[in-house]
Order: sequence, then C-alpha cells, then structure tokens
Amino acid sequence: MPETKNYYVGLDVGGTSVKMGLFTEDGELLAKHSVPTPPLIDAAGYAAVTGGIEQLVGKASVAILDVKGIGAAIPCPVPADGNVKLQANIQLDVPGLSEALLARCRNATVKVENDANAAAMGELWAGSARGNRSFVFVTLGTGVGGGVVIDGSVVSGVVGAGGEIGHMSMNPDETRVCGCGGRGHLEQYASATGIVTSYKMECAARGVEPVELTGTSDSRSVFEAAKNGDEAAWAAIDTMCDYLGRALALISSVVDPEAFVLGGGTSNSSDMFMDRLVERYKSYALAVCTETPIEVASLGNDAGIFGAAYVALQAAGK
Amino acid sequence: MPETKNYYVGLDVGGTSVKMGLFTEDGELLAKHSVPTPPLIDAAGYAAVTGGIEQLVGKASVAILDVKGIGAAIPCPVPADGNVKLQANIQLDVPGLSEALLARCRNATVKVENDANAAAMGELWAGSARGNRSFVFVTLGTGVGGGVVIDGSVVSGVVGAGGEIGHMSMNPDETRVCGCGGRGHLEQYASATGIVTSYKMECAARGVEPVELTGTSDSRSVFEAAKNGDEAAWAAIDTMCDYLGRALALISSVVDPEAFVLGGGTSNSSDMFMDRLVERYKSYALAVCTETPIEVASLGNDAGIFGAAYVALQAAGK
Repeated sequence: MPETKNYYVGLDVGGTSVKMGLFTEDGELLAKHSVPTPPLIDAAGYAAVTGGIEQLVGKASVAILDVKGIGAAIPCPVPADGNVKLQANIQLDVPGLSEALLARCRNATVKVENDANAAAMGELWAGSARGNRSFVFVTLGTGVGGGVVIDGSVVSGVVGAGGEIGHMSMNPDETRVCGCGGRGHLEQYASATGIVTSYKMECAARGVEPVELTGTSDSRSVFEAAKNGDEAAWAAIDTMCDYLGRALALISSVVDPEAFVLGGGTSNSSDMFMDRLVERYKSYALAVCTETPIEVASLGNDAGIFGAAYVALQAAGK
Repeated sequence: MPETKNYYVGLDVGGTSVKMGLFTEDGELLAKHSVPTPPLIDAAGYAAVTGGIEQLVGKASVAILDVKGIGAAIPCPVPADGNVKLQANIQLDVPGLSEALLARCRNATVKVENDANAAAMGELWAGSARGNRSFVFVTLGTGVGGGVVIDGSVVSGVVGAGGEIGHMSMNPDETRVCGCGGRGHLEQYASATGIVTSYKMECAARGVEPVELTGTSDSRSVFEAAKNGDEAAWAAIDTMCDYLGRALALISSVVDPEAFVLGGGTSNSSDMFMDRLVERYKSYALAVCTETPIEVASLGNDAGIFGAAYVALQAAGK
C-alpha cells in the first residue's frame, strides 16, 4: 500500500509580498518561497500566487496533488462564517483567490484566517505555545494585534474581531485619535508607533530634542536611546508596559489563558521591557492570575506561514 | 425495548440554600426543591443534599438510577482541571461531596462548575442565549460576575478566572479598594453595591440627603429614586452604564461574541438603563462590533440549576 502523503501550504499575504511555506502534517517546514503581492482580484493576480506555489512544492519535490490544504493569512478580519468583507488596505477577492487555489491544487482544502490569528496558531503548532490548550498571542508591530486561542482553536469572533486587542478601549480620557477612529486604544500606547509618539511627547514635556528617528514607527531607535540612558525613552517604555500590562490583566479576567506570547518587531527588545511588563501585569491582575507566564514568540516572521498551514490542516480534518 | 431514561440534576449551592432542579435531556424542568445549605464537609452535610435529591426525584416519580448526571454550581472559581481550591466564603469539600453524590446516584456523572459560568450555560441551554454558539453572560448582583461561552462551551480558564469580569481593571486612578483587594474594578461601579456607593458619593457632592436605603447593596431604592427624578440616582446609573458599556466593548475586542446577556437582580431594572448602556457600549466598541446585541437573561434565579444540569449532561457525553 503506498504511503499517504499529506502536505500543507501556508500563505502569508502581506502588503508587499506573499510569503509561502510548505509543511508536513507534523509541522516540519520543507521549503519557503515568496512572490511580490499582486492585486489579488483577477486571473493574473491569482496566477502569480499559484505559480509561486508550484515553485514552492518544486523546491521540495512534492507533487501538487499531495497538497491537502492551503491556508491564507490575510490582513483583515475573518468572521467565524468565513465571509470576509473587503478592507481598504489590500486588494483581495477572497472567493476568487480560493477558487483559483482549488483549481490548481485539486486535493486541497482552502482556509482563510486573519494574519494575527494565524500567527497565534503557528506559535501553537510549532512555536512558543506548543503544548498549550489556551493562550493569547500579542503582536507588537506598527500596530498591535492578537490571537485568542481557547481549547486549541483560535477565536475568530462573530464579525472577525476576536483578538483585536489593539483596539481595547483602555483610556476613555484620551484626546488623541486611534487609526480606527476610536480614542485611548491599546495600540496608541503599545505599538511601535505608540512608543514613538509617547517618546516625542516625553521629550517635548522635558524640553529636550528626541534622537534621530527614521519614521513614525521607529521604536528601535527609542529602545537604543533608552539603552544610552535617555529618560524620555524610558518613560515611553514605561507607558507601553503599563498599558500592555493592564490589557493582559483585563484579558486574564475574561478568558484566563495558560500563557501570553508576545510577537512582532517590538518583542525583539523584550530583554529591555519584560521585567517592567510583568511587574505591571501583576499589579493589575486578579490575585489568582498573577503567575500567568508572559513569553516571547519563537517563530518570528514565519509564524504566519506556519499558522496558515495549520488552520488548513485543521480544516482538512487532520 | 424499554425507553432509555436520562435525567439530569442541577444543584445551585448558595450561601443560604442549595437549590435543586430535575431536568430531561431536552432541558425541561420537571421538579424543583431546595434545602438549607449545610457545612458541606462531612457525611451529615452530604446526606442533607442527597436526601434533597431523593425528594426532588420523588416529586417527579423518577428513579434515582435514571439520573445520569449531577451538576453543582458553586460560588468559587473552578479551574479547567476541576481542582477547586477552598474558598473562605463557603464550607465545601468538593471531592467529598462528589463522592457522596456518586455513592447515592450510581449511574450519574458528577460535574462542578462556577456559579456564574453555570448560569451562562443555563441561558445557553434553555434561556436567552438559546441558539447562540458564543455569548458573554454578565450577572449584575451584589457583585458582578460573568461567563464566557465560546463554541458552545464555557471558558473556565486555567485557574478558574474565565469570566471573572467583575474584576476587570477599568480605572487605574481609582483610590477606593475592591472586595478582592484591587482598585478600579468593574464591580466597584456596576454592581448593586457599586451603584449604591456611587449614589451616596453623588449625593454628597451635591450636598443632598440620599433616599432611605435598606443596605449597602440596595440598588433597587436607587432606581426608585431615579424614577422620581433624583439627579444623584441618575448620575450613579450613568456611571454604571459607562463602565459596563466600556467593559463589554473591551470583551468584544477579545472574543467578539454573538451577544451579551445580562442577569442578576439589577437586570430587572434594565428598562431604566438599557438605552444608556447600549449607547455607551457603541461609543467604546470597535466599529464592526457596535451592533452586538445586549439582551436580558430569561431564567432568573433558575439559571444556575439549569446550567448545572446542562454541564453535567455535557460531561456525560450526551
């Protein structure tokens, strides 16, 4: 009897590139590839992706008919019913792309997932959260996103807002406006952009010049400045830790996860803020929840392709 | 072939009485009974409960061997692993009680659940949340509790703090202390006790005498005063709606449920606060979540026995 061959493809659809990974059902990454993101609304765009998948499987000498699932992590909310409403920040026709994927990979189940939720599932499958039944993934990048995993599955939410923790309403007295139109959201304090904004405000309040910054979300330079003893930079980091610590405490009182896992670019500076963050979390958390571990993600930029492949594997019923 | 007979008993263990209900597997309530709560730590205490169950099944002429599950709603956190740590507010030996129940009802599975979580499951089985896959139950009583239901199951949490929404850290600037030792928790503003406290503070700020109150959690009199045009009472209700509305918005950004369901004594006054609460919720929620319905529970004080029976039915694998 021939050996059953099951492979899974994870696509991470970003603004500039579609990253691709080919996986075994045990979560082993066999090959990676990437193509520039085309407008994913017509045959030419879909062909750029299916062509990329052909190159991907070719690298590992895997037959395309042995691909049993394709997951796509996309940068917009994905409701529980899978009915994605178009978002302004990407040109993407989900039914059209799904149809094109199915036409080229005839034995595959196709599953679409929000990118932060997919990254959470990646960490669950093969990263820092392996072995957990529940955890909350927090991605600290230009914005703040998240994925809430309960009993081994990601909570999409009825309109796809599960894990949209960047938009938790933390400070009703805030006058500045969040990118979403709200005020006082977590993202305004804990994203890279938020750290830079806090830093500039702290500098202005102290009447000192900020260090040179390469852009509005160059939090790396703020962490560098902190290393060099810049008090305004430390104040910005304290603000981030205070808001993020309280947000994690709020989340504990709702779903009480086994762990928190931090990903995204800012998590690379965790050695500089983790002790403060844990201290702030403990100060706000219910007494029984103070020991919940806060860990750093281990898959880095690959979390999306891992998770996309894993949700496809789950959807295929493996 | 004889008809299979499956009945389920729900126990709601409170400070003064153990309420009991006998149910069919379709959620029909066949009989109710109650006994004063004994110290549930020895044979005499357990016998008071098992004796009550005998009377309960007798009322409906059901044989005790046809009871296939007994659920007990208890006023303390129940971790996902079921290992309940003793709480100060009730004398209860969970393993001892479970053993005594199993000895008397030999065909039954026994399942213990936190009381607010059980009430949530009751509303899911036979109340306002029937037909929902996900919802968040909020009990507005002397304190504030809750139950988070995802994909048809209640989220207990790793240490049993799932749905402990009364202790969401809403206001880090609060100086008054919550019953749990924290500060600025939802319960301090949205519980009956919180409404009374806010009312007294509003009266003091206005230099007016509060209406006569029967106790520290007599929110009913505050609602009565509001009906009669008491501005301080309306201000207290506004405070409650503002904090509760923001808490529900925060929860939406974490698990994005299909609905919120309000229970507990204060929910009986929902005609006086629901419009304000919905308005505050919408103002804080992410745009895609503003239409999430906020409903009133329908089972009243019976939610606990319904839900306790339902979690036992689930545990029995029916």
